[in-house]
Amino acid sequence: MRDKDQKRDWKFKLHEIIYEADTPTGKLFDVVLLITIIASIIFVMLESVKEFDAEYHNYLNIAEWVVTIIFSIEYILRIISVKKPWKYIFSFYGIIDFLSTIPKYLSLIFMGTQVLIALRALRLLRVFRILKLARYVGASNLLANSLKASRAKILVFLFTVLIISVIFGTVMYFVEGDQSGFTSIPVSVYWSIVTLTTVGFGDIAPVTPLGQFIASMIMILGYGIIAVPTGIVSAEYAAQHRGQLPQVPPQLPKVDMNTESCPNCSAERHKDNAKFCYNCGHILNEHR
Amino acid sequence: MRDKDQKRDWKFKLHEIIYEADTPTGKLFDVVLLITIIASIIFVMLESVKEFDAEYHNYLNIAEWVVTIIFSIEYILRIISVKKPWKYIFSFYGIIDFLSTIPKYLSLIFMGTQVLIALRALRLLRVFRILKLARYVGASNLLANSLKASRAKILVFLFTVLIISVIFGTVMYFVEGDQSGFTSIPVSVYWSIVTLTTVGFGDIAPVTPLGQFIASMIMILGYGIIAVPTGIVSAEYAAQHRGQLPQVPPQLPKVDMNTESCPNCSAERHKDNAKFCYNCGHILNEHR
Amino acid sequence: MRDKDQKRDWKFKLHEIIYEADTPTGKLFDVVLLITIIASIIFVMLESVKEFDAEYHNYLNIAEWVVTIIFSIEYILRIISVKKPWKYIFSFYGIIDFLSTIPKYLSLIFMGTQVLIALRALRLLRVFRILKLARYVGASNLLANSLKASRAKILVFLFTVLIISVIFGTVMYFVEGDQSGFTSIPVSVYWSIVTLTTVGFGDIAPVTPLGQFIASMIMILGYGIIAVPTGIVSAEYAAQHRGQLPQVPPQLPKVDMNTESCPNCSAERHKDNAKFCYNCGHILNEHR
Amino acid sequence: MRDKDQKRDWKFKLHEIIYEADTPTGKLFDVVLLITIIASIIFVMLESVKEFDAEYHNYLNIAEWVVTIIFSIEYILRIISVKKPWKYIFSFYGIIDFLSTIPKYLSLIFMGTQVLIALRALRLLRVFRILKLARYVGASNLLANSLKASRAKILVFLFTVLIISVIFGTVMYFVEGDQSGFTSIPVSVYWSIVTLTTVGFGDIAPVTPLGQFIASMIMILGYGIIAVPTGIVSAEYAAQHRGQLPQVPPQLPKVDMNTESCPNCSAERHKDNAKFCYNCGHILNEHR
Repeated sequence: MRDKDQKRDWKFKLHEIIYEADTPTGKLFDVVLLITIIASIIFVMLESVKEFDAEYHNYLNIAEWVVTIIFSIEYILRIISVKKPWKYIFSFYGIIDFLSTIPKYLSLIFMGTQVLIALRALRLLRVFRILKLARYVGASNLLANSLKASRAKILVFLFTVLIISVIFGTVMYFVEGDQSGFTSIPVSVYWSIVTLTTVGFGDIAPVTPLGQFIASMIMILGYGIIAVPTGIVSAEYAAQHRGQLPQVPPQLPKVDMNTESCPNCSAERHKDNAKFCYNCGHILNEHR
Repeated sequence: MRDKDQKRDWKFKLHEIIYEADTPTGKLFDVVLLITIIASIIFVMLESVKEFDAEYHNYLNIAEWVVTIIFSIEYILRIISVKKPWKYIFSFYGIIDFLSTIPKYLSLIFMGTQVLIALRALRLLRVFRILKLARYVGASNLLANSLKASRAKILVFLFTVLIISVIFGTVMYFVEGDQSGFTSIPVSVYWSIVTLTTVGFGDIAPVTPLGQFIASMIMILGYGIIAVPTGIVSAEYAAQHRGQLPQVPPQLPKVDMNTESCPNCSAERHKDNAKFCYNCGHILNEHR
Repeated sequence: MRDKDQKRDWKFKLHEIIYEADTPTGKLFDVVLLITIIASIIFVMLESVKEFDAEYHNYLNIAEWVVTIIFSIEYILRIISVKKPWKYIFSFYGIIDFLSTIPKYLSLIFMGTQVLIALRALRLLRVFRILKLARYVGASNLLANSLKASRAKILVFLFTVLIISVIFGTVMYFVEGDQSGFTSIPVSVYWSIVTLTTVGFGDIAPVTPLGQFIASMIMILGYGIIAVPTGIVSAEYAAQHRGQLPQVPPQLPKVDMNTESCPNCSAERHKDNAKFCYNCGHILNEHR
Repeated sequence: MRDKDQKRDWKFKLHEIIYEADTPTGKLFDVVLLITIIASIIFVMLESVKEFDAEYHNYLNIAEWVVTIIFSIEYILRIISVKKPWKYIFSFYGIIDFLSTIPKYLSLIFMGTQVLIALRALRLLRVFRILKLARYVGASNLLANSLKASRAKILVFLFTVLIISVIFGTVMYFVEGDQSGFTSIPVSVYWSIVTLTTVGFGDIAPVTPLGQFIASMIMILGYGIIAVPTGIVSAEYAAQHRGQLPQVPPQLPKVDMNTESCPNCSAERHKDNAKFCYNCGHILNEHR
């Protein structure tokens, strides 16, 4: 009995250290893990730099093995300390943890590099595991809340940006054509997005006067509508900041949602409770 | 009598399905139509990619016929279900619907592609028909309202941006000249807009020290004045958000609109009710 | 007596038409003048496009003469209708009006084109004369006021942007050197401004890893601090919008302006009314 | 006794002039020093322009000597007027002042230019000494305060920008590869930052359809999230402006900081005072 209790005790402590961050040892574990993850990402990055890899291949190899062993130990400890190991193993983070650990072992069997590098790059996703620390930074909650509150409006905005890009991209394809890089409509739409967001790579640029005129319009439009998401987030954030959450402003002027159109004269935008067409007086939807 | 009623009934139901979105069948119709429109736009886009078209020309041809037939059926149904078909046929959307339907039929007669592609690209405008669904997203009303409220100010701002661009463009034409791409004043103005809106393609870039100095001024200016539309929309949006609509702030310091200038000393900016020049005491406009 | 009165009457009416905008004829005059000015600017622009000028030189010549004659008549009328003509002639707008009128006459005597084109471009400044119409757009006052209120802060901000650009530009000159276009410190500072303002022409771009790392820092900095002028204008504009003008917020935490530093220990940031150093107790400025 | 007093008197006055800015002579000293510093920076800049240096080398040499002598006198006066000279000499500004003064003297001994130019560029840091004048501009305090108040949130934001850049950079490395300039992951991350911040040099640009699609996503993301820092600073600034400092908004919805996860089912996000798992009912952390 005693023995079983002690074993449980030991498991509990391990669980506390690994999965939580409110004991000194738990915090230390998280910080060590964070450093290992960041180091492992930097190693993947450096290995992709050909000149660096050529010179320091051996050191990178050793460093990679160190990271792999630390990840292996962590993975085993995580499985041991949880009561239902299978649940962890097949959870999202369980799979990420597993995939982050195996590339080096696989490289002993297969010699293909590209796929293994891609696999190792998955370690980036492990950063999010550590981000639970971010919850301590109260600030990020305020941020997340105001973004969440303005989500619908930002989506409407992004949708508008996309439609504008498609329309202008199609127009530019006909105006400019192949000679200046507008080789197809998708490429023209890509260029439209590059221009509207004020990025402006310059790999594709209009050369005809009409093309440059339309490009100017896109740029001024992009320069102007950047104000819209900013205004939204500002207002939401200010509201959150003041501690009020007026998601649905009470005095918002009522908008008629009626999508009927008159069967007689095709007039639209009827009142919600309209029975007759405001334009020709014809009866609306008597069969409702 | 019965028969006529039933026919009317049938027409009404059709009208409800096609033109409205508040019955389940009406919503389904709109969703199917939206998907068809988006698919038709994607087909036009893909056909403009030469390599793709070369390989999958037959599939695109079939897809295009499917879309054309769906559009044809829709167009006929729309004409049938409306009481005054001619009014619909010559309405804005009626014409768009017609032009969106015919390109494939025309391609049987004529073989010219460019014009027909341009015609098919018009289908983009059909998206706006579906956007009446957007009215359900209450959010977009708030957005539209705050944009509408700040319309005048945004126009003043855009006009200022244009004047700045023309002035700096003209200056850059004289400073840089042909050797670095500033071949004419319109091109220089185009470059000014590219720079002021912080797009910066780089196809044209100043090379002389003075040109680079002026370019720096334009960039810092553009970086600074982007704050203006943002500030406007933020404030308007915040006002809308709070449910107040102080379009005309009541305590706004009164501005004298008097455009008279003294016939004696040419002084301007007189008080609105001024009878004598504040500068030289000469009588103003006695003949009014 | 009658005659003199009538003459005065005639002059007054002319003055009212030309210098003011609150009678129908006055407004018409302003609109016609605005169109002529804009047309004259477009002619200057088109003449700078070599291909266009080659083909339509004669038409442009005629159009230029028409504009010149209209401007001449307007100039003479302005002189006649003012009581003190010399005051108008040597005023800022008087000189601009004169310079806008003469280029075509001068072209009869001299054949040099560049200087005359530059002179004609001065007509752009005439646009500002018409902008007095903008006073009617009440909106622009609100804009101007909020910009004026935040002027000091925007200057501090621009000064900061300049210092950052100079520092990073100097650093990049030493890091990158000639091989990637950073040929001198001024050019590097120019590149810094291009990057910080998120314009990014790409005519000069870092190629060394360290250079690219520093460039990344500049870009993220530029991306972050664009929030500052926006925040300022937003807040000022919102304050103006609400009709309050809290230029000096009353509860602003008092800031000590004391620039003394202790003659004994060099400590700074003493209280405004400090008599002794807060750090070492030494007496401060007994000789004041 | 008299003599010592007078000497002290003289030293005090000198101290007042050099270290402070609230007497007329003190202000004059600061302005002269500011001009000298700015001139010295401009000389360093001009010397780096090869063509300019080739022609005006002698003038630059003389100007450099004048600046060096003024800095030398200032440095000696600063040492004399302070009671504890060593403290000043080894202070941050003391070292900067010393390093700003010596390059020209060193050039008499060594002939190496690059290092000395770098040393002279350090003079830029002297500008900050003068910035104590900026304290008079009350505006900058408001700015500094609102930036300080939103520091934590801006850091969270910048950290997010970095993570997004690393993830997208890695993805682009695999998608695009060498042929379009994405030669290694660090270079791809650099490109990601260039794109996300809407700078867009264009020295590296995607050429594959998938790469251009992902690039579009990055750009729209960058265009959207620029709203976040702007919103933060706007709200903070507005709060400061109103004279309220609601650093910790009182009605902020309480966020549970509990980082425990259930040892049985691995569920997370328990209430702060949770004793049992909300998901499976298992006891939490009984050994706490």
